[in-house]
Amino acid sequence: MANNILNFSLADFFYNDNPDVLSPPDDFSEWINNPVVKHSFSFFEQELLDAPRVSTEILSNLDGKRRKIINLTSYNYLGLSTHPEVVQAAKEALEKYGLGSSGAPLLSGTLDIHTEFARKLAEFKQKEDCILYSSGFGGNVGAIQGMMRKGDYLVMDEKCHRSLVDGGTLSGAKMLFFAHNDMESLQMMLEKAKGKRTLVVVEGVYSMDGDLAKMPEICDLAEQYGAGIFIDEAHSTLMFGENGRGVAEHFGVEDRVGVSFGTLSKSFGGVGGFICANKDLIRYLKGYSSPWNFSCAPSPAVSGGLIKALEVATRDSSLRDKMWENTRYMKKNLLDMNLDLGGTESQVIPIIIGNSGEKLMSYAEKMQKAGLFLQPVDFPAVPAHSRRFRMSVSSQLTQEEMDTTLSIIEDVIVKDMKS
Amino acid sequence: MANNILNFSLADFFYNDNPDVLSPPDDFSEWINNPVVKHSFSFFEQELLDAPRVSTEILSNLDGKRRKIINLTSYNYLGLSTHPEVVQAAKEALEKYGLGSSGAPLLSGTLDIHTEFARKLAEFKQKEDCILYSSGFGGNVGAIQGMMRKGDYLVMDEKCHRSLVDGGTLSGAKMLFFAHNDMESLQMMLEKAKGKRTLVVVEGVYSMDGDLAKMPEICDLAEQYGAGIFIDEAHSTLMFGENGRGVAEHFGVEDRVGVSFGTLSKSFGGVGGFICANKDLIRYLKGYSSPWNFSCAPSPAVSGGLIKALEVATRDSSLRDKMWENTRYMKKNLLDMNLDLGGTESQVIPIIIGNSGEKLMSYAEKMQKAGLFLQPVDFPAVPAHSRRFRMSVSSQLTQEEMDTTLSIIEDVIVKDMKS
Repeated sequence: MANNILNFSLADFFYNDNPDVLSPPDDFSEWINNPVVKHSFSFFEQELLDAPRVSTEILSNLDGKRRKIINLTSYNYLGLSTHPEVVQAAKEALEKYGLGSSGAPLLSGTLDIHTEFARKLAEFKQKEDCILYSSGFGGNVGAIQGMMRKGDYLVMDEKCHRSLVDGGTLSGAKMLFFAHNDMESLQMMLEKAKGKRTLVVVEGVYSMDGDLAKMPEICDLAEQYGAGIFIDEAHSTLMFGENGRGVAEHFGVEDRVGVSFGTLSKSFGGVGGFICANKDLIRYLKGYSSPWNFSCAPSPAVSGGLIKALEVATRDSSLRDKMWENTRYMKKNLLDMNLDLGGTESQVIPIIIGNSGEKLMSYAEKMQKAGLFLQPVDFPAVPAHSRRFRMSVSSQLTQEEMDTTLSIIEDVIVKDMKS
Repeated sequence: MANNILNFSLADFFYNDNPDVLSPPDDFSEWINNPVVKHSFSFFEQELLDAPRVSTEILSNLDGKRRKIINLTSYNYLGLSTHPEVVQAAKEALEKYGLGSSGAPLLSGTLDIHTEFARKLAEFKQKEDCILYSSGFGGNVGAIQGMMRKGDYLVMDEKCHRSLVDGGTLSGAKMLFFAHNDMESLQMMLEKAKGKRTLVVVEGVYSMDGDLAKMPEICDLAEQYGAGIFIDEAHSTLMFGENGRGVAEHFGVEDRVGVSFGTLSKSFGGVGGFICANKDLIRYLKGYSSPWNFSCAPSPAVSGGLIKALEVATRDSSLRDKMWENTRYMKKNLLDMNLDLGGTESQVIPIIIGNSGEKLMSYAEKMQKAGLFLQPVDFPAVPAHSRRFRMSVSSQLTQEEMDTTLSIIEDVIVKDMKS
């Protein structure tokens, strides 16, 4: 392996033939401890020493140094994680309810603050009811597992999040994947599922590319085949639509989308997930959704903070407007540098570098040392020919921070790509 | 269905033949809206109006009344959820880091407070390393899914938690279930798995019965067959063993148990889960554990509170001692009333009523109205002949609260069972 160590990725160590079940494959340890591989992993699990703000500090995995950086990797799109009103509301909830809810929602874990938050989320999303999960991952898993059965069909965009795929596996339903946002491919899969109970599963904003599901066309096709629609609005809730309800609102198709998932860890600035749907379906889901039935209810302190986050983000559009203003500014300037931003239509901006893993890591290192923390996304998370950085634009970004960011990107990436 | 409505349970509505994928089965809605069924569900999702303390308040699902109650359903075994030092530490973490960590641990979600907490948990459990999950459910799912592969064997106690079973399903490994705590049955399954990579999966304290895994015998058998051991110490961490490390410590077998799971939502008083194991295995797990890779890192406020909870619970044994003192008192007095407590050996005390669902619900209602909130556990969560109440004993219980509890149980249950 020593000669071609860089041709390996985590995908090569999935199967484990070590007879000791408590140990990784022998060659995994050899691989992961190779200096080149170690270096490339130093961009992951990069510890922040402060809040996930745009302006924060890291203890660099590269050289062990403390470094002030502009952080464009966190999903704190509206700055709500550290918003003073949100922090204050969380403190009040902590004081009243304590840190944990000490039980599963079905048994003893439901506090009035959870019920209040779920009701407000349902009202916000204009659906009849809402179920709260203590993790977003659990929400997607739990909804798909709770709704779908062996013999049913899931027709999923190939870029759907792992939580949706794991939910599909647990449900026992047949999963058919259609080519990303490709309506011909979607129709082909709907044909295959014809006559079966079918759920079409898409994301509002796709997390690696920042593009949007083609909702009007997807709704047309799903309706034509009598299939239900599930939308994962993880990166789009509070961001898209006139009222911030997401990509379904943006396209004016909310009434046509039966199940809407949102996460509470991105624009909301907390942690957890929720599903909004009709009352009967939510009632039914509660019977068969493991991560709800067998998992502790959310921290009441977090729910208290999140009720305030919802209020702050929806009482006017100022935070969302600022985020879009920043997004437009960054996109325009990145495009002016002739960078490849793929098909982004959102605050998630990929900067596509190409097929060189070495360049990706070298740029990441130089940018970090210049004070910019941008997450490199390597194969196998994205195709090998489109390795990239992923930028998450936040409403918090100041003009100065945007200009510093652009100038570092120009110095490190653009100049090298031209040379 | 109208005539035998009480013979149905959720188990009967798992399959869904409604052609509309967004709707439950037709007869589910009929069943769940039947007044008798509605009444029996009123003991679930019972909203608390205050912290999950022993002394709290509910808005009764039975009659819509506010009611002060003695709450013996919450898993706040050591009162840490509302411990003033824990609440204060969580507030400080909130102030410094904000409400959410705004990213997956692999990408941007790892803050120094998470690393610190994971290191302290590993030290506490005397294992090399630790991985934190934002939900306990996700921790069990993620560990099993991350370690096990198609072709491997999971040999699991039949009473293992649903999260362990869902993890097994996702892993693709073959699951063999042995009769609860039955060493002959365990050996039979280990024979079937002979020559395969095998993990024996048990719980320290079983949540419906309160009994302990027979760890010394389980270790002997697993070693004889070259299998690894995974213990879920959800209900036993901070409770069992001289230093509170759990049932593996209690039996002196910690070095023989490769993987140890703990939850942060029970005795710890927060939310989340963690896995402790050898460094190589934790490193490997991080590559293939979906609920870690694709899920937001825990709330830093929660992690801050939990670091303090660990300190408070381990700086001396006073909380644990008090919890055991209360447990002994309750058990002695319940046994003196000739109640059937099954084989409990822990702070989880089942009070087994028998095969009458009507009696179970009638007792639950009378006890609640007398001021005692005890969770009824009905079929199919437990076998139909052993419907029960489940009592969670806490260090917080005062002598007066214990005596009031016992007197309500005597009035409602014991007198009726004698008559």
